[in-house]
Amino acid sequence: MSEVRGPLRTALTRRLAIRHPVVLAPMGGVAGGALAAAVSAGGGLGQIGIGYGDHAWLTREFDRAGGTRVGCGFITWMLAERPELLEAALERRPAAVTLAFGDPGPFAARIRAAGVPLICQVASAGEARRALEVGADVLAAQGSEGGGHAARGRSTMTLVPELVDLVAGLGADVPVLAAGGIGDGRGLAAALVLGADGALIGTRFWACGEALVAPGAHRRATRAAGDDTVATTVYDRVRGYRWPDGYTSRVLRTPFVARWHGRDQELTGALDRLAVQYRRAVEEEDFDVAQIAVGETIGIVRDIGSAAEVVADIVREASAALQAHRPDPA
Amino acid sequence: MSEVRGPLRTALTRRLAIRHPVVLAPMGGVAGGALAAAVSAGGGLGQIGIGYGDHAWLTREFDRAGGTRVGCGFITWMLAERPELLEAALERRPAAVTLAFGDPGPFAARIRAAGVPLICQVASAGEARRALEVGADVLAAQGSEGGGHAARGRSTMTLVPELVDLVAGLGADVPVLAAGGIGDGRGLAAALVLGADGALIGTRFWACGEALVAPGAHRRATRAAGDDTVATTVYDRVRGYRWPDGYTSRVLRTPFVARWHGRDQELTGALDRLAVQYRRAVEEEDFDVAQIAVGETIGIVRDIGSAAEVVADIVREASAALQAHRPDPA
Ligand SMILES: Cc1cc2nc3c(=O)[nH]c(=O)nc-3n(C[C@H](O)[C@H](O)[C@H](O)COP(=O)(O)O)c2cc1C
Ligand SMILES: Cc1cc2nc3c(=O)[nH]c(=O)nc-3n(C[C@H](O)[C@H](O)[C@H](O)COP(=O)(O)O)c2cc1C
Repeated sequence: MSEVRGPLRTALTRRLAIRHPVVLAPMGGVAGGALAAAVSAGGGLGQIGIGYGDHAWLTREFDRAGGTRVGCGFITWMLAERPELLEAALERRPAAVTLAFGDPGPFAARIRAAGVPLICQVASAGEARRALEVGADVLAAQGSEGGGHAARGRSTMTLVPELVDLVAGLGADVPVLAAGGIGDGRGLAAALVLGADGALIGTRFWACGEALVAPGAHRRATRAAGDDTVATTVYDRVRGYRWPDGYTSRVLRTPFVARWHGRDQELTGALDRLAVQYRRAVEEEDFDVAQIAVGETIGIVRDIGSAAEVVADIVREASAALQAHRPDPA
Repeated sequence: MSEVRGPLRTALTRRLAIRHPVVLAPMGGVAGGALAAAVSAGGGLGQIGIGYGDHAWLTREFDRAGGTRVGCGFITWMLAERPELLEAALERRPAAVTLAFGDPGPFAARIRAAGVPLICQVASAGEARRALEVGADVLAAQGSEGGGHAARGRSTMTLVPELVDLVAGLGADVPVLAAGGIGDGRGLAAALVLGADGALIGTRFWACGEALVAPGAHRRATRAAGDDTVATTVYDRVRGYRWPDGYTSRVLRTPFVARWHGRDQELTGALDRLAVQYRRAVEEEDFDVAQIAVGETIGIVRDIGSAAEVVADIVREASAALQAHRPDPA
């Protein structure tokens, strides 16, 4: 397995034997086999997002990826509740496994023993150190401007160079991905000059035809501005997901979120009723209520793309941005 | 007055007739005449931060800048309380005036009539539209990872390309600066490839010998990590500053902040006592209590620099980062 060369070669493209330094974020329930396979076919690395999915879901989505080489990602604290899913995933010989949101320690050795590259998504220097300690092959530095869950706190612009320096300072030979807020080639170019070896991208691929997203959600999101998102716990609460303290999820500010965000006590009182209302809204694809989990970068996403073309566009734009800003001799 | 050419020429260097696309953030009370003059001497644009200063402060700091060409910046809602300070500033024929945090409308015409370039610092698409409407010559897109005050919400990585597209879509010939989280040349390079024409930099210049910062604050900050900052209203409350809703200030998490952040009601009850404690701490330079207003990027600032050298380092590093990432022919 050797790298197919693209215009933007980095330590990451070599390590993962991919053409472009673009990795699909393992968006739980959204990045299924079709999206993952399309990103890989486009020269990036696709990843199936296991998220809250069960064994049947995992099997179906790996099947849907067909013969295409894809990775997968877990929400670590959920994996801890059903560790057998890791074995099921490893049986599919994934191109990489991403762990995010929790201590990778209990799973890292098993993944590495299987010969599968381990990507750890981290949101602080402390988490980065821990990931290196347990043998992560790649770090993804996650800023809180991204879609879906994130630890409250850091932004991509500052976290990436700080973690790049941390990795270099420890003498570790571990590529760093920038995650959060990268919606086009300008963002990938920014990631590279910040010192990252590539980008882990969620929102821009969420807005692709291959994603497991309802058309009504796509329609609303492509009309949204970056100012229309909010990081909230409202949806985790009404869905009954037991996210540990300190995590929020970035979503579009639907009327439902506008009503309940920041009203924790009142929400607790109404929880049973809201849980029912929420489930019904999801069934009916009512996106005044149902969540649309996208990041700030949705403000520059104006159309629903096809994933392989999105990869190509991002790489072409990034190359052009880097070309355009070559410094002159002083 | 014509541009002296540096390696990174942009619409901004041409518009402001500066050598490097680096602008000193008008940090209130921190960016005095010495720091502003040093940044301008280094080839960037220095700006005096009027902030909460009065007429005597303004006069003294412009005097300290000597003959060097510098701009200045106001906190717009404070300027509205003492509009005569704008006349005092314009008499000094500043190279630019920056308005931030409030509606620039009431002051824009006067500044432009004086032939002085108007920089508007904005944190959303709505604020950007308003700034263009009143005739801003330059926009600074401010992400909330930066030091000091910011509107809650956006990050530099996503706000910059979105506002660059907004300006282009309106056919406006207005350079955009990236502000927030830019601490070295990698950050400047990222700003440029994101589509900005330069960077407005606070924290990295705060950590310079010419800044009006106590040595004890400098010592603590250069040991801090990016994870050690927090966006809070605690210091505005104990100082009695009437910041409008929606603004927080990013500062180091001192023991004082750790004690009071998120405990609004309790803080209200203790406010008189805390105001006295706070003033004493500032006099005594006790930085367990007194504020240290820096952004997330403090995590990559390891030394106290001299401002002109910092400008040169940033430009050299940015040029190197852009050179290093030239795409290969595919
Ligand atoms: C709809 C959605 C679901 C997500 N689910 C997961 C997940 O299950 N596991 C995970 O590690 N990250 C998840 N993320 C976060 C991504 O891994 C990544 O950090 C983020 O999408 C990057 O920011 P961006 O959305 O601006 O590209 C999700 C993101 C989105 C948008
Ligand atoms: C100590 C300090 C004081 C500041 N005071 C002001 C101010 O008075 N007016 C203003 O427009 N911005 C002020 N800012 C914000 C800056 O203009 C700018 O947005 C910010 O510093 C950019 O992020 P950075 O700190 O990561 O470079 C201040 C920033 C700092 C660090």
